[in-house]
Amino acid sequence: MNSVTFQGIMSARRAVYRRLKPTPLIPYPELSTFLGFNAYIKHENHLPTGSFKIRGGLNFMAQLSNEQKERGVTTVTRGNHGQSIAFAGREFGVHTSIVVPYGNNPEKNSAMRAYGAELIEHGVDFDEARELCERLQNERGLYYLNPLVEPALYHGVGTYSLEIFEELPNVDAIIVPIGGGSGSCGAITVAQAINPRARIIGVQAENAPSIYLSWKSGKAIQTSSCDTIADGLATRVPFDLPLSILNQGIHEILLVSEDEIREAVRLALRYTHNLAEPAAAASIAAACKLKAELNHQNVVLVMSGANIDTHTLKSIMA
Amino acid sequence: MNSVTFQGIMSARRAVYRRLKPTPLIPYPELSTFLGFNAYIKHENHLPTGSFKIRGGLNFMAQLSNEQKERGVTTVTRGNHGQSIAFAGREFGVHTSIVVPYGNNPEKNSAMRAYGAELIEHGVDFDEARELCERLQNERGLYYLNPLVEPALYHGVGTYSLEIFEELPNVDAIIVPIGGGSGSCGAITVAQAINPRARIIGVQAENAPSIYLSWKSGKAIQTSSCDTIADGLATRVPFDLPLSILNQGIHEILLVSEDEIREAVRLALRYTHNLAEPAAAASIAAACKLKAELNHQNVVLVMSGANIDTHTLKSIMA
Repeated sequence: MNSVTFQGIMSARRAVYRRLKPTPLIPYPELSTFLGFNAYIKHENHLPTGSFKIRGGLNFMAQLSNEQKERGVTTVTRGNHGQSIAFAGREFGVHTSIVVPYGNNPEKNSAMRAYGAELIEHGVDFDEARELCERLQNERGLYYLNPLVEPALYHGVGTYSLEIFEELPNVDAIIVPIGGGSGSCGAITVAQAINPRARIIGVQAENAPSIYLSWKSGKAIQTSSCDTIADGLATRVPFDLPLSILNQGIHEILLVSEDEIREAVRLALRYTHNLAEPAAAASIAAACKLKAELNHQNVVLVMSGANIDTHTLKSIMA
Repeated sequence: MNSVTFQGIMSARRAVYRRLKPTPLIPYPELSTFLGFNAYIKHENHLPTGSFKIRGGLNFMAQLSNEQKERGVTTVTRGNHGQSIAFAGREFGVHTSIVVPYGNNPEKNSAMRAYGAELIEHGVDFDEARELCERLQNERGLYYLNPLVEPALYHGVGTYSLEIFEELPNVDAIIVPIGGGSGSCGAITVAQAINPRARIIGVQAENAPSIYLSWKSGKAIQTSSCDTIADGLATRVPFDLPLSILNQGIHEILLVSEDEIREAVRLALRYTHNLAEPAAAASIAAACKLKAELNHQNVVLVMSGANIDTHTLKSIMA
């Protein structure tokens, strides 16, 4: 199974809702006045582990065979995916070995350890860290979960888009931050099945535009760096699975600057009293640029996660 | 109807869940390690309007007669109660005139206006503001909702305690911030019906200890001031209805200092990535003082609201 389907998302509901509640979709009148349209926040930041990724982790673990569960799982992460797999591993009694690059955020590392994961630091970046996963697969027999190509993750994540359309069937647009692409692919797949008139709008950081550039040009484009405060958007190498879905279903991808992302974190605090990690605030940053285009429409902004570390928050508030 | 009953709380479920989802009860491993017990946060900060009060507002509006709905409602507030009534008024198409004292927090005022309430500033403090409500009742025929004596509010608020016991029936202790007292009264009422072994522990601010003093002495004691950063705890005059319930059912009330409250807001950000208003963080502040007493137990900390203004947050983060 190498594709993302509406049926797969429907099937993921059982694994997801055995352990999670649907997240709130809340309209914010003051934010709406500020933006000039009916702004609803989809609160993926309210989930355990503080991000939407946990939906994918639970669905993935539920689909493992007993033999795979006994062998354990290894994966590579910068933070939210790792917390999701650590959490799901604990829930299912599955050993998890999670590889992060050297210098990874210590608060994120300690969160993964707290869920019981074995945390291994290796390599200077995501791609070098990933090589260790392949070695662990060979040497220790662990199941190597590649977060960018595993449909079970996409299907689990897609359940938040189902919740959006169940609660607000006449939504005009959904603005989704794009890191790896699982959130936006879920939104596209669900929109095509339920309400193809709903526009799915993606957001990337100006400093990490690989998927934006790939979408614009029609071919996969890597960037030489992806240095953004929004670590959830920091993808340098786009993958085929999300690109193929984005290329046929995304209506628009916007780029936002570092300053716009920082201001959006402050707007989230001011108008919603929620702590949005920079990647999650990117949907608000994009909304600020679409005021005219979305005037008076019903728009969902996906607040994808809450995992901002103390140091970054302080620098943004200062 | 002048009492708070388990039946009243059960009956409130219909009005509450027509418009709200149950809030998450999330275990936080790192916070648990820090505190030395299994710490669960009850996320009342995740509700629309950013606090638990909305449960009461919805239940209150649902119980009004058509004639009362047409007359409209007036009430007095410093913030969260007013947002609840403004929100519920809009949902039910009921005019609301909400009185706040002069100098009330401008962000809270603008939030109430955004929900469509008529906002009136009057008087130097809560008690002077309240006098205007009585005049509006006489002159304009509005229904005067006294937030401290209206059982429908207590019953609506009590639904969060029902959710706690449904999800964690063997909870050992629940730590609840006490402002007016509706949250703690709900917890006591539900615990007595479902699991009387669960200890209900209240928290007040050292700078606003009226209910603590009244509970200790067995008679209502007003304080001359209630100057705390936790405006949700800033009660100067205790009321008979909550006192009578607290006196027979609360296991302990702790006082926490301003510094302890500020530190607790930072702990909430660090360990849960949630924005807790100072009153809501008070349950974490109390938990820090109960580490030995609660060692290894299952403890729910009620995070009662998110409504912290930008200025206060900046000063706490600095």
